[in-house]
Amino acid sequence: MPEKARLLRGFQDFLPEQMLARNNLIATVRQNFERFGFLPQDTPRLEYADLLLGKYGENEKLIYEFRDKGNRHVALRYDLTVPLTRVIQMYGHRLSFPYRRYQIGMVWRADKPGKGRYREFLQIDADIVGDSSLLADVEMVLLTIRIMQSLNVRALVRINCRQILEALLQTCGLTAASGAPVLRAIDKFERIGFAGVKEELRESGCAPSAIAKVEEYLSAQGPNEQVLANLQTLLKQTANLQGGVERLAGIVATLNALDDAARWVKIDPSIARGLDYYTGLIFETTFLDDPDFGSVCSGGRYDRLIRLPSGEFASAIGTSIGLDRLFAAMDSAGLLPKTRTITQVLIANFAQDGLAEYLRLANELRSGGLAVEIFPQPVKLAKQLKFANDKGIAMAVFMGPDEMSTNQVVVKSMTDGWQEAVARQDVVAYLRQRLMPVL
Amino acid sequence: MPEKARLLRGFQDFLPEQMLARNNLIATVRQNFERFGFLPQDTPRLEYADLLLGKYGENEKLIYEFRDKGNRHVALRYDLTVPLTRVIQMYGHRLSFPYRRYQIGMVWRADKPGKGRYREFLQIDADIVGDSSLLADVEMVLLTIRIMQSLNVRALVRINCRQILEALLQTCGLTAASGAPVLRAIDKFERIGFAGVKEELRESGCAPSAIAKVEEYLSAQGPNEQVLANLQTLLKQTANLQGGVERLAGIVATLNALDDAARWVKIDPSIARGLDYYTGLIFETTFLDDPDFGSVCSGGRYDRLIRLPSGEFASAIGTSIGLDRLFAAMDSAGLLPKTRTITQVLIANFAQDGLAEYLRLANELRSGGLAVEIFPQPVKLAKQLKFANDKGIAMAVFMGPDEMSTNQVVVKSMTDGWQEAVARQDVVAYLRQRLMPVL
Repeated sequence: MPEKARLLRGFQDFLPEQMLARNNLIATVRQNFERFGFLPQDTPRLEYADLLLGKYGENEKLIYEFRDKGNRHVALRYDLTVPLTRVIQMYGHRLSFPYRRYQIGMVWRADKPGKGRYREFLQIDADIVGDSSLLADVEMVLLTIRIMQSLNVRALVRINCRQILEALLQTCGLTAASGAPVLRAIDKFERIGFAGVKEELRESGCAPSAIAKVEEYLSAQGPNEQVLANLQTLLKQTANLQGGVERLAGIVATLNALDDAARWVKIDPSIARGLDYYTGLIFETTFLDDPDFGSVCSGGRYDRLIRLPSGEFASAIGTSIGLDRLFAAMDSAGLLPKTRTITQVLIANFAQDGLAEYLRLANELRSGGLAVEIFPQPVKLAKQLKFANDKGIAMAVFMGPDEMSTNQVVVKSMTDGWQEAVARQDVVAYLRQRLMPVL
Repeated sequence: MPEKARLLRGFQDFLPEQMLARNNLIATVRQNFERFGFLPQDTPRLEYADLLLGKYGENEKLIYEFRDKGNRHVALRYDLTVPLTRVIQMYGHRLSFPYRRYQIGMVWRADKPGKGRYREFLQIDADIVGDSSLLADVEMVLLTIRIMQSLNVRALVRINCRQILEALLQTCGLTAASGAPVLRAIDKFERIGFAGVKEELRESGCAPSAIAKVEEYLSAQGPNEQVLANLQTLLKQTANLQGGVERLAGIVATLNALDDAARWVKIDPSIARGLDYYTGLIFETTFLDDPDFGSVCSGGRYDRLIRLPSGEFASAIGTSIGLDRLFAAMDSAGLLPKTRTITQVLIANFAQDGLAEYLRLANELRSGGLAVEIFPQPVKLAKQLKFANDKGIAMAVFMGPDEMSTNQVVVKSMTDGWQEAVARQDVVAYLRQRLMPVL
């Protein structure tokens, strides 16, 4: 007897039914990326540890790191952004900028596993490097909207701008460093509310006047133009404000010109994003019908992280989809179509000496783009049909001795139960008409 | 200045041009898998080390293993077959058999890197579990033939059977254990020739009569029927022979009935395959025009490796494509189409206040299935066209003030240089007709 098979905690197996649904979701996202001009890129799952260390603050402890057989200090990648910085530094001289790339791949974090939180999970990133334009910001938001629309998800892209948060800190008399706890508290607003934010701020030693300012800031909700007007009133004395407000106003105005787009975008002062490296637009995407799932797609502009081979900074903006959370949210919302199989036709097996005939038909159907299996042994038909049913195969084809002698086949619908005799030479066209080819 | 960015030796970055070619190749393979009824599956890249240890003989030293933060002994997967054994053991009770699955994913081996040999490389596997039939063997060979045909590669699937090799060992008076060096020497025949094989056998202490027998065995080349007849004459006294010869004869006869298939299959006594676990059909696939590249797709039947939850063995047959070697072989044969980009249309940028108009057109084209970029800034047109040229974008669209005032756009072919004015409302249909939508 074998030893007991075990799966590491926080890691996942995907059997076909789940994998088909994941692949469909990924294909939709990729199609959107490609229509927006993003190209695929890949980097190793394993990197020199020094590339990753010092990049993730206190989360650094979650990195899977070890010594390899050559005593190199290596680490499993923690995200796809730091590898992108390495790619631009190493190959920037032969890329065309703006460089639009997407990358789909596993990342690893030795976090406590929980609902929708895994130690190995698929990240789907799209970034534009070398483009600081308003267009890039607009397209990144628009891309997110289009992906959600393609997935039939009603989602809201909630946007804010780092300059506005800096203006808030300035108004409170805080610097980027002393203001870090304020940003962390704001980031939790949705979960812990005003009371929670105020308590966090009190605990971190924030002055009562600053706490009042933060509360006023977080209350600036409403229609997009109203929020911007409120923020201008509230933060008017500060240096950074105008750039941030203008950028957000520009994004909203441009999206307004695109009929349907602007109503899926909301300026939300409570969006702060945890990572330090953001420098401009930041955004999160939540399900309108189930906002408690948290953000399924988020990102922002980071103009001082990526360096060109020359050492200069390259401006950049990116979005990242956590497939596992998106998948869980769509599953909970009943938005995942159930597909048990790709196989469309089962050719029943009546006799071992029919094998060449079954294979010839399978060959023709497969060349016609259909997905086909032949039952391996001439066992009882009921057993073969049970297999087709269990797998969710739509059609069964019978080529028994009777059918062969009259140059016919019988086609049976596994869903509706009807069956019909079809001339052998017409069966490919017949089945193609009823089933979608696998392109 | 940043630290020097480095890539681990034996690991690879894939920039878009190479990644596009790899993705095309993978898509073709997947399409074939799916038409043959194989479904996708995935397993973690990291496993408990004890699942892997003891499975790969002397190659075990190539496994990337380490202690994780919870002091678990873990390892990066070495192939996709051992994880498949775990999947069947854990979930076999809820799968339909025969279970046809494919899996595409990275595996890791701390091997000496060399031409086409990497420490992280993509493996593409298809296996049928719970099916010992002749049909399964035929379909696995046929699948390989069809994949090579879809890739426009002229390749030969060279087949043999473990029972025939066992019969040879028996004829030489050897057991499975004492015959292992003989199989290893035969496996190298193609590279080292008769002289090399004989020297290896002498060094391993093989009797002269056995060495003569092996030479006679390896000389049994020729048309498939002739090889089988020769083997029957040579090995006639042995117990295992008949089953092996019958299986190979059955495979060839069935493929013969499929017009074109049998001429891509050759019974080759020198095929031995390194791994111990094979029990029946074994095969390797080499380029007809460049056989020195070695096997790009190989596998075989292994009926005593996978166990069901009950503890019983499940019969199985599999094929494995090493994408990196296949890619290198196709590249060397000039069979990889050069694609620099997916993007088909660049919308030129004439003025910042045209942004909404550019986005509206991009939106319509993207909804029509085309891949579109807008140049981010209204810089000199020559610079924008150079970007389109560098990336390999086929068409540029101009919407300058003149065009906007007459409700037209100008379309320019980047390959042929012509340009043409098109009415604004016709431009989506016009471009769709000239460019293939990205489905």
